[in-house]
Amino acid sequence: MYPSVLEKLIEYFKMLPSVGQKTAERYAMRMLEIPEEDVENFARQLQLTRRKIKRCPVCGNLAEGELCEVCADESRDRTTICVVQQPKDVIAMEKMGEYKGLYHVLNGAISPMKGILPEDLNMASLMERIDENTREVIIATNSTVDGDTTALYLTKILKAYPQITVSRLATGLPMGGNLDYADEITLSRAMSGRIRQ
Amino acid sequence: MYPSVLEKLIEYFKMLPSVGQKTAERYAMRMLEIPEEDVENFARQLQLTRRKIKRCPVCGNLAEGELCEVCADESRDRTTICVVQQPKDVIAMEKMGEYKGLYHVLNGAISPMKGILPEDLNMASLMERIDENTREVIIATNSTVDGDTTALYLTKILKAYPQITVSRLATGLPMGGNLDYADEITLSRAMSGRIRQ
Repeated sequence: MYPSVLEKLIEYFKMLPSVGQKTAERYAMRMLEIPEEDVENFARQLQLTRRKIKRCPVCGNLAEGELCEVCADESRDRTTICVVQQPKDVIAMEKMGEYKGLYHVLNGAISPMKGILPEDLNMASLMERIDENTREVIIATNSTVDGDTTALYLTKILKAYPQITVSRLATGLPMGGNLDYADEITLSRAMSGRIRQ
Repeated sequence: MYPSVLEKLIEYFKMLPSVGQKTAERYAMRMLEIPEEDVENFARQLQLTRRKIKRCPVCGNLAEGELCEVCADESRDRTTICVVQQPKDVIAMEKMGEYKGLYHVLNGAISPMKGILPEDLNMASLMERIDENTREVIIATNSTVDGDTTALYLTKILKAYPQITVSRLATGLPMGGNLDYADEITLSRAMSGRIRQ
């Protein structure tokens, strides 16, 4: 019923998470209301971002260069790997400022409900990067059902490396809360109180 | 904290209605997950839509050409103008299929709460297009507080044209609706607008 060019734009807006027909329509209509220059800049920024930002081949974090900033930083402690679900969890950890090791971004969590299996996550590359320098893997998945499932799974498969200490952030995190919603102090408590698995 | 190119994209997503920081972040991250081709197409569609779709200079409806489809259609009844809030209200009316007159799209409604005043709406051009051919103006704003306010305001200023009949869509029970499911205001409206049989 809308002009076809607008219908197509509505379909594209539906690619966004939790956006259905009505919301996509509102978003598309907003694009007709704001200055044309803003729409052009928005479109260019979309292309630029997708072209420039890649996943770090080592840890799966966002990277503007060959490697992400953490992996590229020679001063980081290479004996410790902190496993998180999302790139923004890395940001939350870095904001806390107490952790000097490396990261591994799973890009999600195991979820039988959503049909997300270990092989859908960035997990194989975690096993590959563990070597004789690795001393500890800190599991910092969310304190949710999916995060717990993922932590349990990781603990189990990491038993194949008996020389590695596997720990998990303490439940100083509010239960049911996402990592990136936690304040720095809560996160710091959870870090220092991590429990050996 | 995110790479700057991504931060900028997040800012652009915040232009969308009711989208704050967290939602904009989720949207931007989704753009990094879907195939690069989809992002390129999305960006192109944004530009294309904004370039191709304009507001009809006569009625304010969406237009792919010089005028919108309704204004450009010679067969429409030019004595009647139906005033609606949004382009999608035109679509709803056209789906009904019984109305053969013209439209006028206000692009919103008067809302003292949101600070939207008559001069923020496409109202001056309604007054300008009323001429000796105009017989009736049908006010088809939403049946909400803002829609009612707008209808009252329009009724008042249209009194300047005594030769024109001003009407408003009837409010009352929706078809197929049970009496005990109707809210008090709907029922009150249906009661005061009852029709002698």
